[in-house]
Amino acid sequence: MNSRFVPDEWKIIENRFEPENSRDSESIFSIGNGMMGQRANFEEKYSGDTLQGSYVAGVYYPDKTVVGWWKNGYPEYFAKVPNAMSWIGIDVEIDGEQIDLATCKIKSFTRVLNMKEGLLERAFTVVLPSGRVAEVTAKRFVSMHEPEKAAVKYSVKISGGNGRIRITSFINADVKNEDANYGEKFWEGTTVKTDGKKAAVKSQTRKTGFVVASAQTNVFCLNGKDVTEGNTNISARSEYVAAIFTNQYTSGDTFEVTKYVAVLSSLNHTPASMETKAMIKAYEGECEGFEAMFEKHKDAWAERWEQGDIAIKGDVAAQQGIRFNIFQLYQTYTGEDPRLNIGPKGFTGEKYGGSTYWDTEAFAFTFYLNTADSHVARNLLLYRYKQLDKAIENAGKLGFKDGAALFPMVTMNGEECHNEWEITFEEIHRNGAIAYAIFNYVRNTGNREYLGDYGLDVLVGISRFWSQRATWSGDKKKYVILGVTGPNEYENNVNNNWYTNTIARWTLRYTIESLEWLRGVNNPKYNAVVSRLSLDLEKEIPRWKDIIAKIHLPEDTSLGIFLQQDGYMDKEQILVSDLDPSERPLNQHWSWDRILRSVFIKQADVLQGIYFFEDDYSDETLRRNFDFYEARCVHESSLSPSIHSILAAKLKDNDRAYKLYLRTARLDLDDYNKEVKDGLHITSMAGTWLAIVQGFGGMRIRNDKVSLNPTLPEAWKSFSFIMRFRNKPLKIEVTEKDVIITNFSDSGISIELYGETETIEPGKTCKLKRK
Amino acid sequence: MNSRFVPDEWKIIENRFEPENSRDSESIFSIGNGMMGQRANFEEKYSGDTLQGSYVAGVYYPDKTVVGWWKNGYPEYFAKVPNAMSWIGIDVEIDGEQIDLATCKIKSFTRVLNMKEGLLERAFTVVLPSGRVAEVTAKRFVSMHEPEKAAVKYSVKISGGNGRIRITSFINADVKNEDANYGEKFWEGTTVKTDGKKAAVKSQTRKTGFVVASAQTNVFCLNGKDVTEGNTNISARSEYVAAIFTNQYTSGDTFEVTKYVAVLSSLNHTPASMETKAMIKAYEGECEGFEAMFEKHKDAWAERWEQGDIAIKGDVAAQQGIRFNIFQLYQTYTGEDPRLNIGPKGFTGEKYGGSTYWDTEAFAFTFYLNTADSHVARNLLLYRYKQLDKAIENAGKLGFKDGAALFPMVTMNGEECHNEWEITFEEIHRNGAIAYAIFNYVRNTGNREYLGDYGLDVLVGISRFWSQRATWSGDKKKYVILGVTGPNEYENNVNNNWYTNTIARWTLRYTIESLEWLRGVNNPKYNAVVSRLSLDLEKEIPRWKDIIAKIHLPEDTSLGIFLQQDGYMDKEQILVSDLDPSERPLNQHWSWDRILRSVFIKQADVLQGIYFFEDDYSDETLRRNFDFYEARCVHESSLSPSIHSILAAKLKDNDRAYKLYLRTARLDLDDYNKEVKDGLHITSMAGTWLAIVQGFGGMRIRNDKVSLNPTLPEAWKSFSFIMRFRNKPLKIEVTEKDVIITNFSDSGISIELYGETETIEPGKTCKLKRK
Repeated sequence: MNSRFVPDEWKIIENRFEPENSRDSESIFSIGNGMMGQRANFEEKYSGDTLQGSYVAGVYYPDKTVVGWWKNGYPEYFAKVPNAMSWIGIDVEIDGEQIDLATCKIKSFTRVLNMKEGLLERAFTVVLPSGRVAEVTAKRFVSMHEPEKAAVKYSVKISGGNGRIRITSFINADVKNEDANYGEKFWEGTTVKTDGKKAAVKSQTRKTGFVVASAQTNVFCLNGKDVTEGNTNISARSEYVAAIFTNQYTSGDTFEVTKYVAVLSSLNHTPASMETKAMIKAYEGECEGFEAMFEKHKDAWAERWEQGDIAIKGDVAAQQGIRFNIFQLYQTYTGEDPRLNIGPKGFTGEKYGGSTYWDTEAFAFTFYLNTADSHVARNLLLYRYKQLDKAIENAGKLGFKDGAALFPMVTMNGEECHNEWEITFEEIHRNGAIAYAIFNYVRNTGNREYLGDYGLDVLVGISRFWSQRATWSGDKKKYVILGVTGPNEYENNVNNNWYTNTIARWTLRYTIESLEWLRGVNNPKYNAVVSRLSLDLEKEIPRWKDIIAKIHLPEDTSLGIFLQQDGYMDKEQILVSDLDPSERPLNQHWSWDRILRSVFIKQADVLQGIYFFEDDYSDETLRRNFDFYEARCVHESSLSPSIHSILAAKLKDNDRAYKLYLRTARLDLDDYNKEVKDGLHITSMAGTWLAIVQGFGGMRIRNDKVSLNPTLPEAWKSFSFIMRFRNKPLKIEVTEKDVIITNFSDSGISIELYGETETIEPGKTCKLKRK
Repeated sequence: MNSRFVPDEWKIIENRFEPENSRDSESIFSIGNGMMGQRANFEEKYSGDTLQGSYVAGVYYPDKTVVGWWKNGYPEYFAKVPNAMSWIGIDVEIDGEQIDLATCKIKSFTRVLNMKEGLLERAFTVVLPSGRVAEVTAKRFVSMHEPEKAAVKYSVKISGGNGRIRITSFINADVKNEDANYGEKFWEGTTVKTDGKKAAVKSQTRKTGFVVASAQTNVFCLNGKDVTEGNTNISARSEYVAAIFTNQYTSGDTFEVTKYVAVLSSLNHTPASMETKAMIKAYEGECEGFEAMFEKHKDAWAERWEQGDIAIKGDVAAQQGIRFNIFQLYQTYTGEDPRLNIGPKGFTGEKYGGSTYWDTEAFAFTFYLNTADSHVARNLLLYRYKQLDKAIENAGKLGFKDGAALFPMVTMNGEECHNEWEITFEEIHRNGAIAYAIFNYVRNTGNREYLGDYGLDVLVGISRFWSQRATWSGDKKKYVILGVTGPNEYENNVNNNWYTNTIARWTLRYTIESLEWLRGVNNPKYNAVVSRLSLDLEKEIPRWKDIIAKIHLPEDTSLGIFLQQDGYMDKEQILVSDLDPSERPLNQHWSWDRILRSVFIKQADVLQGIYFFEDDYSDETLRRNFDFYEARCVHESSLSPSIHSILAAKLKDNDRAYKLYLRTARLDLDDYNKEVKDGLHITSMAGTWLAIVQGFGGMRIRNDKVSLNPTLPEAWKSFSFIMRFRNKPLKIEVTEKDVIITNFSDSGISIELYGETETIEPGKTCKLKRK
């Protein structure tokens, strides 16, 4: 695929303005800092097609459910991430004519996302209808150092005559969401406030009452000299504040506005004085100055890259792809606030809504676990822990009781907020991934204490759910789990999805093991847990054990494979290779019923289970299942190819591993699915990271050690990744012949490489042979 | 249940005005004539809660689909029956005060639906704020004789003083549908026209462009004397025309307005001159006069009752219930226009939309087949025949080809217009009922010619669909039909629904038999059919035969029952009797997923199949299946209890048959489901008829004969029903001791009674012993 972007190791570069791809680029060049984010909308007026997007973490609007036919138990709303007030606006009018890339003649245009520094830059030259030429440069960032602050530097050089310029730097709260179900505005009660040069706008979300305030202060320069005073008026009207600068220009003059912004939300501030606080913060920015603010921001990014960079030599497109993914993941979630989570589109679009899907635990969690301090992953776990009561309520609505917990499929605050019944009600496997993340955390960090403090509350709630959800089949003489949707959403309301039953059984087992462990190491705490959760040891544990022993796990013994679900072998066994390419992707060409009854699966399902519990299955079992399901998997979920890639690498099928890797690596950059205009696939970006680190790197945590089985895709000269294990930073570089491991920590570490234990001294690098 | 209505054999009587039940009564007292219909909204202003409904047959609006998440193949729209211009309006103002039952003091109120004569009457006395007393009587009907005409007679007697009266008789086209998905108005381009006393309004539906015109002309009388001239102004404004009569009154004066109305639609007229034509028709009414018009209307109703009345002695509530059902069925569909069908709510409400569901063929068809001239049932068949091309298109959208036809689940014009995928895409069994109706028609009428002319085109299209929809299971070594929803909508996306597979097999068999028959009796016609349908005799027929031989029909041999679907016995086998009554109906108390995975079925499903093909199953098989499924059926479809009742009667379980019958007999009159406010359950009313005629009457058509096995519910003294067989009118009366059969035709008829053949001479009555 020909990329629209110039290959570069650290930058995304666009050298031409393509109005037809404008929304796509707005998504790709998005910037964020975990607290807020902004699509790459233009500062100046743009009358062409655009999706305006300015988002504030944790703020949502409960948009009334849309369904064709109401069914009992449906959630009342779908939580939408509201497009908040726009703080980037800088309109430029030259002799009454506006700079507008949709109407001006464009002489040159470049847009650069500097991922190393977290900076968005534009430079363009346009000719206005009058013939005047304007050379514009624009830079902006949202501070990774102080996440409520942002700044824009915007300059215009005019040539071709003399006249009058007017620059309007504004905040506009008259915004809407395209994705609103009923065309409603999500904000209300907007107020404006000014104080000298400073101005602020404050709005609150309807129904939920989240308050957001944005403030700005501006410095206007002419040819490098501050000329703000005397030339600037502050204007405020309903939902809008502006600093309006007017001046005479002569050909060759350069005007520059530096805009200091603060965005505050009621998640962190009391609403009453929020505008004032925002104005103070914006003014702090001005006092510090753009360059100084940017230096700190750049340093914060440098720290991130030191924790999680992946370097690829010999394949600049792959390098650009993986850095883009890592960059977006860090922009979306920084892990400092346990009320936040990883929205599927991050701060790059409004589609899907909600902030938390099973994607978090099944994919993104491992990325943060390995590339950030352990409190980040812990905060992701605490997010669910804090929503346990809501999960118990949610299960109650579906008829479960006695502390059974069903975490929502999509949520902002713990309530279910998606309303396709086949997803909300049936995709119960998410409960398993949430339990698995606890195990994953404990395995990585060694922090078993977490179980007694928080983890067991969640594990017991989920185990109770599985215990009630599994029913006894008199026919099969087995426990069955009926009416579910597995990860493969190209089937629903199936019985005994192998993945779901497997992860249910595993949860019950892990919960019992964790209770046993706690009883052994800390009996008082164990008793406290039993009492806190009113655990009926006589009744609950035996039932769980009975289910573990007798749960039905469908398989085809003649083929030696696990079955997607009961009845899967009744389907016509045609293969992906039999499909007419013009009918791909199936979800755009086949009617839904045809997809449902076909053999084709959307994403890893049995293989997702084998991936999670790989030590339970031999390579031969993996190989048979891989060959069977890879031939039937159309990978129409962005989450899918990475898991297949990891398993192919495990099977030493490097070619397939690499081909599958390619399907996700530049998914958004090259817009494989023709949907990047709506925003980026943030959570699936973690899958690409997994495919390199766990796939090509063969990295696992086993027996309290990092275990590596690296291989090198033929197309690459080398690759390296940085990870943390128990707060020890490590760098693993895989070259054609060597595996070079650096231990950045101040104590030694033992690592397994190809099954052999190697010890690396503190601060040392160890070069070993690659197999 | 205490009924709100006075028991009466021929009338529905309400003796009190209950504002809280106002919408319910508006539904119950609806009138219609197959061409148009009108909810029992008041003529005079009513400021209380009301659902205004004026409907014109065949007119629909394609309301843009509402879904939470779009899936490929979804229909673009849901066809809504638009509330059309209101033609009943007569506002009365006495000294500036309006008669309004929501604001006046009500001294007395009665409302009567005279079902024998098709007349809606009201009489009420109110005291106005001024103290004036108004005694009002109102009568109206929509003509069964000339279905584009209607008339209203409205009189007001004033006492308690002298003053000024103003009567405004109007047509108002400024109307909306409550059920509109996006709050849109369905009508546009409204024009008004007047000519002397006459006035008309014409509107057209948006998108579909159906044009409807209503015209009126009015006669105003004072104490019996026509005083229209000189006291009446004709007024017209946007979307509204009115005749405004003003006069002085003295205490004791009676004013009366007679309003003659015509409603025309572009289904039957060119739009251009429609207002004029409507005015002419309204004027024709005036010239004929209310009483003369009404006489003809009454005669038309008398004819209907002669064709299809059921009389029950000893149970006035049952008598009222069944006559109400028959009355509503005749009001909804008269069978004169093959473009029309039987909407699930008829002309009594706007909910559900569409006009044609599988209800038509599975339930209503047999009613019309037995109680109307055979062209009526034939028109219902032709309706589908004319939509065959659309059915082939519809199947094409789902990936089927070569003439395979999938008739829509809900439609107005042959296009699918419902958008729950689990219904639209999966409830393919409707195709079977459409084939069955052809068989039912041929069996009843003996008109096998229909097969060669039209029937085989539909049968072959449907058989091709089944042939492609059935796939080979390598696992089962059987043909399977995967991913369906059976009649029981409390399951979906199931495999091998026994009913669906059974009716699919039957269709294939009946199609082959019909082709064979045609080849035998008329070889040229047979060849013409083969060529017209491009039937590949070498490939298609053998495949059909193979499917007939090898289709999987799930059963439990140990229990001796057919299975709802694959895996049904994996469910927890709890029974309806185990349910907490406070959790009924399940669909209002259980979440959808819980319903789906429970053993409970919503309506007859396996039993529906046994009902259709009863001669294929022994009474013992029926009994085992009946006992099994009746214990698991919650009858939450209005279509269900009637089928169970018929089968219980067949099993000579009179008690159960009667109890099940009671569940539908007065479903709407006594508002069992608390939803009559939205309109009546028209199609399920046919089920009640079936329960009496086929259940208690044991009536079947077998071997070209009427076969009877009557029984009598203990609660009844006797019952009789009238039916037509091959255009011979018959009356069957079942008393405690006798079965009395009258042959109204002019030729003899042989009938089977309890398996014995009895011959009844023309015009004679034959009294036989009841078993």
